[in-house]
Amino acid sequence: MSGLTFDLIKTDGRARLGTLMTAHGPIDTPAFMPVGTAATVKAMTPEAVKETGAQIILGNTYHLMLRPTAERIDRFGGLHEFMNWPGPILTDSGGYQVMSLAKLRKLEEEGVTFRSHIDGAYHKLTPERSMQIQHLLDADITMALDECTPFPATEEEAESSMQLSMRWAVRSKKAFRQRPGYGLFGIVQGGVYGELREQSAKALIDIEFDGYAVGGLAVGEGQELMFQTLDVTEPHLPRERPRYLMGVGKPDDLVGAVRRGIDMFDCVLPTRSGRTDQAFTRRGTLNMRNARHKDDPRPIDPDCSCYACRHYSRGYINHLVMAKEILAAMLLTWHNLHYYQELMAAMREAIAAGAMDAFAALFAAEQAGGDLEPL
Amino acid sequence: MSGLTFDLIKTDGRARLGTLMTAHGPIDTPAFMPVGTAATVKAMTPEAVKETGAQIILGNTYHLMLRPTAERIDRFGGLHEFMNWPGPILTDSGGYQVMSLAKLRKLEEEGVTFRSHIDGAYHKLTPERSMQIQHLLDADITMALDECTPFPATEEEAESSMQLSMRWAVRSKKAFRQRPGYGLFGIVQGGVYGELREQSAKALIDIEFDGYAVGGLAVGEGQELMFQTLDVTEPHLPRERPRYLMGVGKPDDLVGAVRRGIDMFDCVLPTRSGRTDQAFTRRGTLNMRNARHKDDPRPIDPDCSCYACRHYSRGYINHLVMAKEILAAMLLTWHNLHYYQELMAAMREAIAAGAMDAFAALFAAEQAGGDLEPL
Repeated sequence: MSGLTFDLIKTDGRARLGTLMTAHGPIDTPAFMPVGTAATVKAMTPEAVKETGAQIILGNTYHLMLRPTAERIDRFGGLHEFMNWPGPILTDSGGYQVMSLAKLRKLEEEGVTFRSHIDGAYHKLTPERSMQIQHLLDADITMALDECTPFPATEEEAESSMQLSMRWAVRSKKAFRQRPGYGLFGIVQGGVYGELREQSAKALIDIEFDGYAVGGLAVGEGQELMFQTLDVTEPHLPRERPRYLMGVGKPDDLVGAVRRGIDMFDCVLPTRSGRTDQAFTRRGTLNMRNARHKDDPRPIDPDCSCYACRHYSRGYINHLVMAKEILAAMLLTWHNLHYYQELMAAMREAIAAGAMDAFAALFAAEQAGGDLEPL
Repeated sequence: MSGLTFDLIKTDGRARLGTLMTAHGPIDTPAFMPVGTAATVKAMTPEAVKETGAQIILGNTYHLMLRPTAERIDRFGGLHEFMNWPGPILTDSGGYQVMSLAKLRKLEEEGVTFRSHIDGAYHKLTPERSMQIQHLLDADITMALDECTPFPATEEEAESSMQLSMRWAVRSKKAFRQRPGYGLFGIVQGGVYGELREQSAKALIDIEFDGYAVGGLAVGEGQELMFQTLDVTEPHLPRERPRYLMGVGKPDDLVGAVRRGIDMFDCVLPTRSGRTDQAFTRRGTLNMRNARHKDDPRPIDPDCSCYACRHYSRGYINHLVMAKEILAAMLLTWHNLHYYQELMAAMREAIAAGAMDAFAALFAAEQAGGDLEPL
């Protein structure tokens, strides 16, 4: 019996429409989770995040364990209360960011020891400690601790890394405290090697998780290889449980992965792009620093109903960007998150209508069509 | 006949309760104007600015003339439209910031030539050009171009500077295009010298302005000398017109200046402090970086009804500050602007009740009382 109820409402090809119920509310899938690394979705109030349509956000265990610490967040009543986000939260295991951000990492069977990138203090992350931290954070969805296999990796390296992750998956499951409305996801590893992915999926299914993530992708292998890996992995994932593609991705990555049976996504792209002057639109990405926007009275996207597009011109946003104003990051992040949520909503509608292929074709044509006609 | 209607509703000692009507709406006085330098009140949406209770904001002519330029803002329909602030706007003349920010300044009878601090381009600001720019910006309240006399200045220097400002005031008035709902304010100069202030006020009254600003204060002279200068200046200002103390100030400056007959204020303090981790409260100023806040579940001010105090703890805000999150600036700016607006509203109520002296005594006692009891 899983702590998380997942209703698979409809399929269209391999694309899936569903609802995942958590302790803090439902998540319509396919779903995109904005990243709220340090207990804030950068440059956004939680109310604004909700207004974009987001139902669940992601928190980063690595950042939060170092500052303000999981124990402190627990004393504040958990991450929802601490950051004023009453909806569902998924936390990662910390493993990925220990390997990408921390200093003097040492990976052993027991876990990984490292020094904080903030103050140099020593820490140890084990499957048991990761489960404890995520419990203290009160995450609706907890991720098993894994090692994100680097790319490129030989098959031998990928297998050895995957086997370590599978042993950690067993320990994660054992240490996870099951409660109604809370769930634990296992993470399929195995690099770009189909047999390893299959082995990994089967090992996780034996352990029994509430959901299954595909990890170790979006690490430099490119979209083609990512999709190929999904193609060989997805058939081994249980139909009745949600699937989560970690750290993905660009809008066309999301469309392609939904067509390959993925239900959940997270990525810093919409938020980070909002702080680096990029705006996503159905006609492609705009660089708001570009001087061609200076006198343009049109919104970023005339078809967009987000707060930024309802009230501000491209000319104004270009001005804010050039003047390095905080409001530039606020408006562009808002727009980008809205765009991502609208994209997910459109895919959910398409699946409901049995029209996912047509949607994907339209999406590709629009993206290729380029920006608006000149004024 | 003035373009701006000013109703002086009640006085209490020298403190005044009034309403100033502009093309874009009314302003209850005494009023505090948040500073929106570059067509944005930093780290705030205009809706949030309005929610704090602000009725009018200030725009900086110097910044806007350089970027995005007054002509461009005019093409966008004026500053209100450009920045999505439908309420009243006051713009300064540009003179003060030319002297504090621009490079290679050259002050002559005609005006001031300078190089932009952004791209080094040459510009010239004259009374006529300042009026033109503020007209293009569609400012409800335009400020005459003056020279802000530096502090300290000898009486001779202060007089010579003041006389230049008075000649520029004549030219400003002549160049200003009068329209209903729009007005031009003259600026009293004269340093800390009472006779010069009196001469300056009389010269401006002869020209006839819609309001009278007191300039050249809050430039390092200290509160005592500022209040002394107000005491010798205010009796010479016409009772039936609004008075504006430029660039002021700290909360206790506002209380003291309202008691000395001032109706309008602007200052970067609440917004800048919001970006440098300071929070204003009726019990004094808090440094939100201080480690004592880390585990404090109380809001910045339990008596405050602002967005930040309704939803976030001191512990969370301390975390955001330490993590250098944009949301820290957003929440602290929001709180500080709310505090300033609440302070003005409280003074308006006190004047209406004939209790301004009692309010000032209570205010001083609360400020001196220190922060909340420890948890």
